[in-house]
Amino acid sequence: MLLSVLSLIGTFVFAISGATAGVRQNLDIFGILVLSFVAGNFGGVMRDLLIGSLPPDAIVQWPYLAVSIAAGIFTFYRTSLIAKLSNPVLLFDAAGLALFAVTGTQKALEYGLNPVMAIILGMLTGIGGGVVRDILVNEIPVVLRSDIYAVAALVGASVVVIGKYTHVPVVIATILGAIICFALRMMAIHYGWHLPSSNRTNARHSRNS
Amino acid sequence: MLLSVLSLIGTFVFAISGATAGVRQNLDIFGILVLSFVAGNFGGVMRDLLIGSLPPDAIVQWPYLAVSIAAGIFTFYRTSLIAKLSNPVLLFDAAGLALFAVTGTQKALEYGLNPVMAIILGMLTGIGGGVVRDILVNEIPVVLRSDIYAVAALVGASVVVIGKYTHVPVVIATILGAIICFALRMMAIHYGWHLPSSNRTNARHSRNS
Amino acid sequence: MLLSVLSLIGTFVFAISGATAGVRQNLDIFGILVLSFVAGNFGGVMRDLLIGSLPPDAIVQWPYLAVSIAAGIFTFYRTSLIAKLSNPVLLFDAAGLALFAVTGTQKALEYGLNPVMAIILGMLTGIGGGVVRDILVNEIPVVLRSDIYAVAALVGASVVVIGKYTHVPVVIATILGAIICFALRMMAIHYGWHLPSSNRTNARHSRNS
Repeated sequence: MLLSVLSLIGTFVFAISGATAGVRQNLDIFGILVLSFVAGNFGGVMRDLLIGSLPPDAIVQWPYLAVSIAAGIFTFYRTSLIAKLSNPVLLFDAAGLALFAVTGTQKALEYGLNPVMAIILGMLTGIGGGVVRDILVNEIPVVLRSDIYAVAALVGASVVVIGKYTHVPVVIATILGAIICFALRMMAIHYGWHLPSSNRTNARHSRNS
Repeated sequence: MLLSVLSLIGTFVFAISGATAGVRQNLDIFGILVLSFVAGNFGGVMRDLLIGSLPPDAIVQWPYLAVSIAAGIFTFYRTSLIAKLSNPVLLFDAAGLALFAVTGTQKALEYGLNPVMAIILGMLTGIGGGVVRDILVNEIPVVLRSDIYAVAALVGASVVVIGKYTHVPVVIATILGAIICFALRMMAIHYGWHLPSSNRTNARHSRNS
Repeated sequence: MLLSVLSLIGTFVFAISGATAGVRQNLDIFGILVLSFVAGNFGGVMRDLLIGSLPPDAIVQWPYLAVSIAAGIFTFYRTSLIAKLSNPVLLFDAAGLALFAVTGTQKALEYGLNPVMAIILGMLTGIGGGVVRDILVNEIPVVLRSDIYAVAALVGASVVVIGKYTHVPVVIATILGAIICFALRMMAIHYGWHLPSSNRTNARHSRNS
């Protein structure tokens, strides 16, 4: 129950990120609502497609749609407010990532996936919506080029899996995983952590020339 | 039977839109045929993936493939003819949208989806092929930024669902939904209707600068 | 058994192509590993999604993930070596294409698809990873615009299907199909064969103006 509510909050925040991308591209209200729904739900949809849980939750449970549309309309009429809110949005976004990562992992484990793949599907649940959002607005997915984001989801998901194999109660492992993912993400933002990249001049040259 | 024939006509017209996009990108004949198949069938494929009707119709029924390939070859050798035909193509495209929207909704209802999601899956059946076509040629999907298109599909799909819950015979609701979707789309083209967009200078600036 | 090993080699080579695309885009190590996994496995994932074999092989069998990650890390640290190796990479890539095409076709036949669609799904298994890789780095898929590549996969897949209907033993048809696909691809590279394209100045003009 608590997880459901938190998961809807995650959907709302991710949906705002989708709507914001749509506003930046100057899309009409329909395009903005599509991006809201996609960003808020396609991580879970991709997970459900891959584990064979059909139809996906986001398709059969109307609150996900309702929350996504509410986020899209809110963003459409309050663009300037969202711009001011960027700090709280980053905070909610980290919370959404953490919640999706741990609940996605739980669901994958329930469907009998092996531990490594359950972790990867948890991460996919967390980042999938943003990937499809960026593909639709014709940009390279942010998660592929940015700082500690997917890695935080991986760590949170790993805690859930380790908890399962060390017989920690599910509730505790889930909450712990979410907190660690959230904390890691907030610290990465605060301290500017990022992963090593292949910042080689020859690679850049071959592209720019 | 009538619906099957009309559905294949819809596939043909959408496939032409895919092939035309391929010709514009100067792709080879294989690339053009792929875009034909994708544009003509991926709306239905996405619907079938999401409702769990596997393998999708377009994969098991050969006429969809045959019609798509025919449309691709026709477009490849008659590019200039297609260019002249743009008015009839818009008309057929509206017909395809209408047919896909109502048949997609029917199928989603048969698979037990709730009414709101059946409407959304009907719309997805209508617009999905074009979305994947545009992603493949690296453009923001037209449907996200254009006039009354997806909304016409939503209205047509809604008629089918309302018909079901008011016990109107399926055939009548389906035909009525298709006619209303088609009429709405044609009027939107004729009168230049479009949805409100977030045409805000600050949003544009943040993008252009 | 032999096929499994060869299939993992194919995954490794395709994963290198994904990692190389990531290095060119200057992505961080995580983005590079994602592109490795996607390029090495999404052909098979798309096939499994479409035929309803869920969860997909690449999700439940860990060697696919392990091989993809190994390829990504290898590429990250040995970018210049990969650049020198481009001939062997083309050779392995052709081998991967051939193996994926025939094994994908076999699996589609086992799931009861009709012969034409089995061929198309075989081809999809061969080319799908590269298509998603190119979408993620925001480019038009190479396979849509390049020389005899997908067509070689189609021919190899056809051999498998023809073999089935002429009661040739599965092993022989599979090996023969793979060899023919491989040989066709290598000859296309060597002699510079390509398909006719719609290289029409008016089409180009309408795009550039």
